[in-house]
Amino acid sequence: MSDTDAGVVQWNGEFLRVIKSGRWEYADRIGSSGGVAIVAVSPEGKLILTEQYRIPVGKRVIELPAGMTGDSPDIAGEDAEVSARRELLEETGYEAAEMTMLTAGPPTAGLASEIITFFMARGLRRIGQGGGHGHEQITVHEVELRSIDSWLKQRVSEGFLIDPKVYAGLYFWVSGALGHAC
Amino acid sequence: MSDTDAGVVQWNGEFLRVIKSGRWEYADRIGSSGGVAIVAVSPEGKLILTEQYRIPVGKRVIELPAGMTGDSPDIAGEDAEVSARRELLEETGYEAAEMTMLTAGPPTAGLASEIITFFMARGLRRIGQGGGHGHEQITVHEVELRSIDSWLKQRVSEGFLIDPKVYAGLYFWVSGALGHAC
Repeated sequence: MSDTDAGVVQWNGEFLRVIKSGRWEYADRIGSSGGVAIVAVSPEGKLILTEQYRIPVGKRVIELPAGMTGDSPDIAGEDAEVSARRELLEETGYEAAEMTMLTAGPPTAGLASEIITFFMARGLRRIGQGGGHGHEQITVHEVELRSIDSWLKQRVSEGFLIDPKVYAGLYFWVSGALGHAC
Repeated sequence: MSDTDAGVVQWNGEFLRVIKSGRWEYADRIGSSGGVAIVAVSPEGKLILTEQYRIPVGKRVIELPAGMTGDSPDIAGEDAEVSARRELLEETGYEAAEMTMLTAGPPTAGLASEIITFFMARGLRRIGQGGGHGHEQITVHEVELRSIDSWLKQRVSEGFLIDPKVYAGLYFWVSGALGHAC
């Protein structure tokens, strides 16, 4: 048990710890300054999505390409844009000419301290295989905007879960604020 | 320490526990079957948002009205739509004539088992004060679609965080799939 600015550490694991502040208990990642998620649109106008089995929910999940910032000693201190470029390449094999920050926010502010920074990736060029780093086994999907709602519904009917950040990414893609009239 | 179908419990708190499966550590809520988030649009065409201080991130956060399903003994076993109606009323003072399920997915599938079910609320009628239940101190905002991007940017410049689920809700609101041409 030790104190942090934000409360008292209740439990320390390898990747997570639990902090208590007053009666509030929450999860905090160890050794990372946050996460990134990338809204990557190919030159053919397709959104790049990932599929992987997620142990915490026990199912395959459709997600934006994503990952943690500086979560191993060799990449400690990297900035969020560098993380976004690294994760996009590792997971999907794409490099991006432009990487523009969209927003940064907490996907589950009552449960965890985690902040995810979203980027828009443009000017994609496939230079690698993708599939993830180390133990990760990631399948890459490329889906046109006009068919994405039906594509996602089809995945749900097959037993997949959809990370709500996918829909947040779709809003950034279709909203006029990003120069994409819908 | 005890076994679950999904791994071995490493730590048990009042509201959270930590489970380990292989090398993977994740947070699991105790006594709740999941969460709900509500995309509530007023008869005047305004999106209903909440603002509250969130201990895990140490800031005020703009969110969709949201809460947990069956998270106290008197509401154990309630279904997600009932939770959505209860949370919308508690937090914002609105009841909804229609409550339609949109999607259910994990906002942070690498960190926690939590699944959030999203609903669209229509036919709103204000019958209470809102502000939250018990210790909660929630401020309600009502924002027009045409000004929401600038409204959210203004909040960020004032030091607020925006929960990415707000943008997911905006996608559901503006997407043709819900009958809202944009």
